Amino acid sequence: MGIGDDAALLGRIQGKLVLSVDSAIEHTHFERDWLSPEALGARALHSAASDLAAMGAAAVAVLSALVLPADVGARELRALGKGQASAAKMLGCVVVGGNIARGRDWSVTTTVIGRAEAPIRRRGAQSGHELWLIGNVGLAAAGLRLLEMGQARARKKAFKLCLEAWRNPRAQLREGKLLVGRASAAIDISDGLAADAGHMARASGKRLVIDEVALDRTLAPELYEVAEFLRVTALDLALTGGEDYVLLATGPARRRPTFARRIGRVEDGAGVLLERRGGERMVLSGGFDHFAA
Amino acid sequence: MGIGDDAALLGRIQGKLVLSVDSAIEHTHFERDWLSPEALGARALHSAASDLAAMGAAAVAVLSALVLPADVGARELRALGKGQASAAKMLGCVVVGGNIARGRDWSVTTTVIGRAEAPIRRRGAQSGHELWLIGNVGLAAAGLRLLEMGQARARKKAFKLCLEAWRNPRAQLREGKLLVGRASAAIDISDGLAADAGHMARASGKRLVIDEVALDRTLAPELYEVAEFLRVTALDLALTGGEDYVLLATGPARRRPTFARRIGRVEDGAGVLLERRGGERMVLSGGFDHFAA
Repeated sequence: MGIGDDAALLGRIQGKLVLSVDSAIEHTHFERDWLSPEALGARALHSAASDLAAMGAAAVAVLSALVLPADVGARELRALGKGQASAAKMLGCVVVGGNIARGRDWSVTTTVIGRAEAPIRRRGAQSGHELWLIGNVGLAAAGLRLLEMGQARARKKAFKLCLEAWRNPRAQLREGKLLVGRASAAIDISDGLAADAGHMARASGKRLVIDEVALDRTLAPELYEVAEFLRVTALDLALTGGEDYVLLATGPARRRPTFARRIGRVEDGAGVLLERRGGERMVLSGGFDHFAA
Repeated sequence: MGIGDDAALLGRIQGKLVLSVDSAIEHTHFERDWLSPEALGARALHSAASDLAAMGAAAVAVLSALVLPADVGARELRALGKGQASAAKMLGCVVVGGNIARGRDWSVTTTVIGRAEAPIRRRGAQSGHELWLIGNVGLAAAGLRLLEMGQARARKKAFKLCLEAWRNPRAQLREGKLLVGRASAAIDISDGLAADAGHMARASGKRLVIDEVALDRTLAPELYEVAEFLRVTALDLALTGGEDYVLLATGPARRRPTFARRIGRVEDGAGVLLERRGGERMVLSGGFDHFAA
């Protein structure tokens, strides 16, 4: 970076350039008492970098555009920057510049610049390939619901795990890179498994079949405990919960990496189906609301 | 761009990568009745691209992160996108992706990705070089003051020119590229001529001397008319007014391009001085407040 210059100067980049931007807005995505400024900075960066993970890209540089209310001081700003810097370090990139402005509500807009020699796309799913899940779905959605219910300081282990999943997600850049040459398609789950599987199915012109038994096997035991408290099923949280920044991919069985768990398969056709325990198939078209209807 | 993918996919970039991000926030930088959504989109893009102009970089791609209040509908969003797209086209780049979120106040955060073979820095000013101005300073600041005074629909030609300068600035990318090989240092004037000259002086370890007579010669006649109405001097507006997205550069006299106007010179020393008509020198350290004191 050209410190003190008008723009950040990065030098030459090997490979294709991959770009992603994401905003975290107070009152829309979070409330101030839900997480520390440090966690906010780190979370915003992982969330933006997750889009690159799904493409098998490496993160190179980050730009941060902050909006801070008048009552946010130098201490909170430093903490936020510290969270961004440590998240960047964990992901192998660096915050090279940004912008700070005053406004009524906090917001953190993070741009991640990455590179990929052979980016994975969401449109490459092929019939006969497996559907893979990389990471735990549902926990962050459960954590968010707990926060919305005023359970920010819950002490039960299962509750804390869910809160932590929402507060401190990790972009799976390493796993994403290891999918290159193995996966035929990939997407990050930000809108929920059912909805993002729908995006992949549509882009690929294929049908994705999620195997309930296989999906159920991937769920954390703690998710059941919190789901009961929330009066939803763990499966609902898994299918509709976003913000876990888990990766969904497709690929041939013989190429499945050890960190990926098979939760279904790709078929000719369209849409996303859930194959229940008894073999019955239900259409999941874009999220829980449709699933429940 | 990989339309519909998680991140925008750009391909390979020739030259060094240059990055810039800038936010326009409602109630901080603008009010809704000051400009149309289309002008807002275009203005935000030019403003972010101006940082690249100062480095002699070309703009390649743009990411747009929008925050929209609940009462902003599809029509305004389309208009804003249209403004962004036409500004991008004018600047030779393309909007490749973005993010839209709800929030209490409008905001437009624009990231511009550019490339430069030989970026100009703000730290290269050399003693004996001239100080060049590229563009008209003061008009946008006058326009902003008119807007703050409720003169959004002023009809006098001079007033309209100032309003237009604030509403529809143009990033001087073409001029910036033509400075490569001619200028020893460059910066875009976003904080005001005196303040940004201070940044350049500090980065270069030199003194910049602004020649009042020469600067005065560059000012638009309309600026005097509006300055009188605003009860400030045209020189104050020129020295302290930002948001014109004018370029300030230094270089040897024999290399001055036709579009650049000489307004001073670089000397050994530190700080920014204004050399008055009578030869008296005043220290301008960071803006009008200090200048006036």
